[in-house]
Amino acid sequence: MKRSGGSDEAKRRAGEAAADRVTDGQVVGLGTGSTAAHAVRALGRAVDAGLDVRGIPTSVASRELAREAGVPLTTLADARPDVAIDGADEIAASDAGFDLVKGGGAAHAREKYVDSAADELLVVADPTKLAATLAGPVPVEVLPDARPVVADAVGALGGEPTLRAAERKDGPVVTDNGNLVLDCAFEGIDDPAGLAADLSAIPGVVEHGLFVGLADAVVVGREEGVEVRESGG
Amino acid sequence: MKRSGGSDEAKRRAGEAAADRVTDGQVVGLGTGSTAAHAVRALGRAVDAGLDVRGIPTSVASRELAREAGVPLTTLADARPDVAIDGADEIAASDAGFDLVKGGGAAHAREKYVDSAADELLVVADPTKLAATLAGPVPVEVLPDARPVVADAVGALGGEPTLRAAERKDGPVVTDNGNLVLDCAFEGIDDPAGLAADLSAIPGVVEHGLFVGLADAVVVGREEGVEVRESGG
Repeated sequence: MKRSGGSDEAKRRAGEAAADRVTDGQVVGLGTGSTAAHAVRALGRAVDAGLDVRGIPTSVASRELAREAGVPLTTLADARPDVAIDGADEIAASDAGFDLVKGGGAAHAREKYVDSAADELLVVADPTKLAATLAGPVPVEVLPDARPVVADAVGALGGEPTLRAAERKDGPVVTDNGNLVLDCAFEGIDDPAGLAADLSAIPGVVEHGLFVGLADAVVVGREEGVEVRESGG
Repeated sequence: MKRSGGSDEAKRRAGEAAADRVTDGQVVGLGTGSTAAHAVRALGRAVDAGLDVRGIPTSVASRELAREAGVPLTTLADARPDVAIDGADEIAASDAGFDLVKGGGAAHAREKYVDSAADELLVVADPTKLAATLAGPVPVEVLPDARPVVADAVGALGGEPTLRAAERKDGPVVTDNGNLVLDCAFEGIDDPAGLAADLSAIPGVVEHGLFVGLADAVVVGREEGVEVRESGG
């Protein structure tokens, strides 16, 4: 589930520090969520000041924000991101670099294919997102009619799926792709790569929120500054 | 690509023989394609004659056909199939039982989650679908905006993706789920299970057409009768 904890000041520092790393001429994957939004706004100000960048949004929300902020947009049909800047709901260091849980905003399918296509993924976060090990729940986007059988399969993996209910709309959350989200609780996520493969293989799953080893650096905003953790991988 | 080869007589024998195996009270997954359609029609006649079954369709096409044929329908929200009867574009025996390539009709996402949910999967085919090893191409359903990056990833696996063009509609085929299909050619499919896992893990892939070890029996219609091959697994 989306963690809305963390101060906005810490999120702002993280987002702005990540945007500062973008250089002239780059294509930037524009993440979704409150921390990534600070990066998009900072990029917009840099564009106003003369920086030449183009953004590839990861969601309807980040596309709208980029337009408001004045970041010129392109698409995966025309370009690949040099760098993607995206948030996360949970971040844990691992042998593979960093493992993430994403999908609190239900944008993880598009986030994953944009972030994966980038040469570099910078994760922006406040300290409340850091964890020793991932705990979940893991958001899983499913084809609507497959929901009952995906729920069975998640149960067989030891997970407990809950259909995400919408607010400001009756019934469930519907993703930007027209699908549903099961938030799947597990008793600890000891093997993120194994669970990721198992979830990907379930028929009816469109995408899950485990991002294993994709992040190259984590930019953590703190009240007093910014800490950058680089992947050893 | 869909193989339209095979005589309609052989397909009819296969479909009818599979329908004959359905017993009173069962819930039946209703496959898509010309051979499975014979099974659906045969089930409709059996219902007229008093058989009590309910069907769960695997596509818009099989739902429409079941309605025409008079097979009462239910859904995965209310029931699970005791048996699914479905066609295939290619069938090869393997250590896991049978491996299939499906998706010529672009229905493989729903086919896979319905067929997987069934206690037993009967594949119906004419002899032109039998192969020593799977050759492909493998249909891969993708989120529309992810198409360029999925194509990159398929290329990295040694595949050559081609966007499936529609007929009787300008532009690409759009699936029942609103997505696109890449028909992905490989130079031989030596390790179907490995390729299936690799394709499932690509961000932006909704479902691929490799069905590894799901089939319990293959009902092959021939000009002179029917041959049933049971899985050793």
